[in-house]
Amino acid sequence: MKNFVRKLITNWRKLGLPFFDETIVIAVSGGADSVSLALALHELKQRKKLNLNFVIAHFNHDLRGIESEKDAQFVQKLAENLDFQFETETGNISTTGNLEENARLARYEFLAKIAQKTNAYGVFTAHTINDQAETFLMNLIRGSGLLGLSAMKPIAEFQSKELRVESQALRFQIIRPLLNITKREETENFCQEKGFEFRKDEMNADEKFFRVRVRKKLIPFLQEFNPKIIETLAKTTSLITLELQPLNTEFISERLKINDLQKLDKALFYNVLRAWLKHHRSDLRNVDLKHIEAIERLTHSRKSGRIVELPNAETVYKKQGYLYYEKTRVEKS
Amino acid sequence: MKNFVRKLITNWRKLGLPFFDETIVIAVSGGADSVSLALALHELKQRKKLNLNFVIAHFNHDLRGIESEKDAQFVQKLAENLDFQFETETGNISTTGNLEENARLARYEFLAKIAQKTNAYGVFTAHTINDQAETFLMNLIRGSGLLGLSAMKPIAEFQSKELRVESQALRFQIIRPLLNITKREETENFCQEKGFEFRKDEMNADEKFFRVRVRKKLIPFLQEFNPKIIETLAKTTSLITLELQPLNTEFISERLKINDLQKLDKALFYNVLRAWLKHHRSDLRNVDLKHIEAIERLTHSRKSGRIVELPNAETVYKKQGYLYYEKTRVEKS
Repeated sequence: MKNFVRKLITNWRKLGLPFFDETIVIAVSGGADSVSLALALHELKQRKKLNLNFVIAHFNHDLRGIESEKDAQFVQKLAENLDFQFETETGNISTTGNLEENARLARYEFLAKIAQKTNAYGVFTAHTINDQAETFLMNLIRGSGLLGLSAMKPIAEFQSKELRVESQALRFQIIRPLLNITKREETENFCQEKGFEFRKDEMNADEKFFRVRVRKKLIPFLQEFNPKIIETLAKTTSLITLELQPLNTEFISERLKINDLQKLDKALFYNVLRAWLKHHRSDLRNVDLKHIEAIERLTHSRKSGRIVELPNAETVYKKQGYLYYEKTRVEKS
Repeated sequence: MKNFVRKLITNWRKLGLPFFDETIVIAVSGGADSVSLALALHELKQRKKLNLNFVIAHFNHDLRGIESEKDAQFVQKLAENLDFQFETETGNISTTGNLEENARLARYEFLAKIAQKTNAYGVFTAHTINDQAETFLMNLIRGSGLLGLSAMKPIAEFQSKELRVESQALRFQIIRPLLNITKREETENFCQEKGFEFRKDEMNADEKFFRVRVRKKLIPFLQEFNPKIIETLAKTTSLITLELQPLNTEFISERLKINDLQKLDKALFYNVLRAWLKHHRSDLRNVDLKHIEAIERLTHSRKSGRIVELPNAETVYKKQGYLYYEKTRVEKS
């Protein structure tokens, strides 16, 4: 068994993932990362280490004309070769606002649909140590505060913004079994060793995307200072996560008493606020330092009735000595 | 009063620094940062805002021949112009090991001597927001863990490794009154506005120094991603400091009980260890993640009598169920 496959099955055990009787959706773009994950899972099935039902899900962002079409055909052929079920959809990505973020959201809505349709245990993505380091740098440059500098988790939850089942937002587990164990070049090497092609995502080479510039320009630049910069940054982001972990959860409730909050020192206040927001929104995506600071000002201001706006039509407001969180439900038109 | 001077006196008050009856040593290299600090303090003296005795201290690293000599002459003339006492010494920097670090240490030993000789309140250095951001990046690239990623403080303590008074190591306060309020370009502009020259430290342009490469190459590169990267990084390092602040100091004592340590989760263990090491060494300079991890292994290992070596002839060792810290005193030959 190749080292790549051995590391995957060891991590699979460590993460407590299922070995049989479940359906697993694998998100496959056609790039080396996701192709290597599909190949390794296929090998583990062949070797009877995993007795699972695999579904390959490919979202065609349709942003690159014929190349997008070729990606989709490539992934379909891969699914046929591996004898995995294949699911695909062609998206209609809004080009207003942040294209990168719109594409990501559309992809996750598609994955939520497939996870529900196949009654899957979770959606498996092929994020690597490199993604961990890139995400850290992007958030560092953006100045998103310690929240954004903490690490992606191997198991997380995604909640659909659009899809509901019995009036509950659709949720699914995102599982990243390569996240802390594999570098991107290992995925490329593994595909080559298995004699499989992979697609070079042209979008990955398009420098108008922030992530691509970080990957293609900034990281090579930093490697001149430290050849092991990827591992170093991945370790740093893990340390920050660890540091943020011991939250004082006794303060966490539906609403926060302003008198109590005012007694906290700054560090503890930030911790409590983070934990409280996480309690309400399930993650802290798009919450920036500026939002936390605005809530801090709201807490200490003597005026009543002020409001802080968070991303995604959310607000934190003050009422009768308490802070409340509210998410305005956006009805589909 | 220029904005630069106004910001300085406001911060002076905020930091609780003295207004009269004290001697203040200003460390002046001749670069814009330190010249602007000396000029601003001189102006505050003229305006009778500060009634202090100022001493300009210049350490000649003697690493650049005639240019080093010209720097020293330039600073001496500056001191004469401002009617400040002038102290200087020409160093003999060891070129074995890290030249940059050796130069820094020699400079601080000189400053310790001058601070003692003049019975000074403290040594004032002209670190700016830029230094904060550069130090953060250097430590990030080195992978020095969260300790290294936390911010320089406006008031810190330096303990001499060489000089002793009545068998006590010589200590002095380092005060950085420009640290979180001024960018480097403001110091250059202020010198120009005052019609004063400053020296362009050639060493600052020598790219074999890590800091110089960070300053001249990496930061401009990052500015293409975020024009406010200096402020962003300075803010991030402050946030990390804040996060590391609420240490559980009840655990801190001369020795640490291993049974207690083993009960702590990883995050708390790291916090306790950091606080304990800080208690013993006064700062965490040169303590890396690898040292903390080694002490973690020592704590959890069943074997007795193992030792972890820290930089500067320090050790942490296990004895009869406790961790001990020891610094081997290096006698001068």
